[in-house]
Amino acid sequence: MKRTTFADWPCTVARTVDLIGDWWTPLVLREAFYGARRFEQFERVLGLSRNVLSQRLNRLTEEGLLERVRYQDRPPRDEYHLTDKGRDFFPVVVAMMRWGDRWLAPDGPPVVLHHETCDHDTHAEVVCAHCREPLRHREVSVELGPGFPDRLRAAALATGRFGELD
Amino acid sequence: MKRTTFADWPCTVARTVDLIGDWWTPLVLREAFYGARRFEQFERVLGLSRNVLSQRLNRLTEEGLLERVRYQDRPPRDEYHLTDKGRDFFPVVVAMMRWGDRWLAPDGPPVVLHHETCDHDTHAEVVCAHCREPLRHREVSVELGPGFPDRLRAAALATGRFGELD
Repeated sequence: MKRTTFADWPCTVARTVDLIGDWWTPLVLREAFYGARRFEQFERVLGLSRNVLSQRLNRLTEEGLLERVRYQDRPPRDEYHLTDKGRDFFPVVVAMMRWGDRWLAPDGPPVVLHHETCDHDTHAEVVCAHCREPLRHREVSVELGPGFPDRLRAAALATGRFGELD
Repeated sequence: MKRTTFADWPCTVARTVDLIGDWWTPLVLREAFYGARRFEQFERVLGLSRNVLSQRLNRLTEEGLLERVRYQDRPPRDEYHLTDKGRDFFPVVVAMMRWGDRWLAPDGPPVVLHHETCDHDTHAEVVCAHCREPLRHREVSVELGPGFPDRLRAAALATGRFGELD
């Protein structure tokens, strides 16, 4: 099924959405975070078709979130290891988990994160990198940044959605 | 196109994925965060078909992330306002934006968040709710929580992906 590509949009939410491709992908990444590396490990837990799983693993490898590492020569078999780029997606997954725990888990969270560093059960909070307070929708405005294409700037400002950077 | 439903999975990432439904949905929410309320405002910026947009707005309304508010009687016209549940999805979107800004924006971030509360340009960070340090993949383990179904508990522990709650 052909769909709109968001890859060139001047919005990194759209670019992220474009890369991730469909909703199996965050779950494939979730399994990688849980320690899955081999095709069969992903397959067993996710229960998706080998064909779809194979496409998702290839896409994540092409985009540099996973890398193939040969673990057996005869017959040749590869594992999929998280790269820095893939590992850095962890905060997105735990932010989704936090939202789901609040709004979609009437019996309580199915799983709980344990932060080894401070040795406490915890959940994700999304905060301002500057003042470390939670980033709430009503307290945030959006400005055009350095990566916003010049040719779209005037039109974007005219929509009234953005301010200019200070 | 029929697809697997994740709504009953004992994982709130999967449930969130299931609710969001497809990748237009985060972008519809993004526009709501940018201030869009009327059908035409969403349509103009996103450039998706009226049919698809209408489905996504209905889904988000049914699921309680948006609510319909009548703004004109003849002919009847509704706006879509964010609810608390919808507004609470903002951290997920800005966590995605942060990842995209790091990995998919070679010319710099297209847009920049400004935190009105502390009056600084900023970006999202995902931290441990307890110690306020960044939640990194290597420093987090996962335990079965109170909402994990009893009938699946033994099988889940046998996969070796989870620890038991302290």
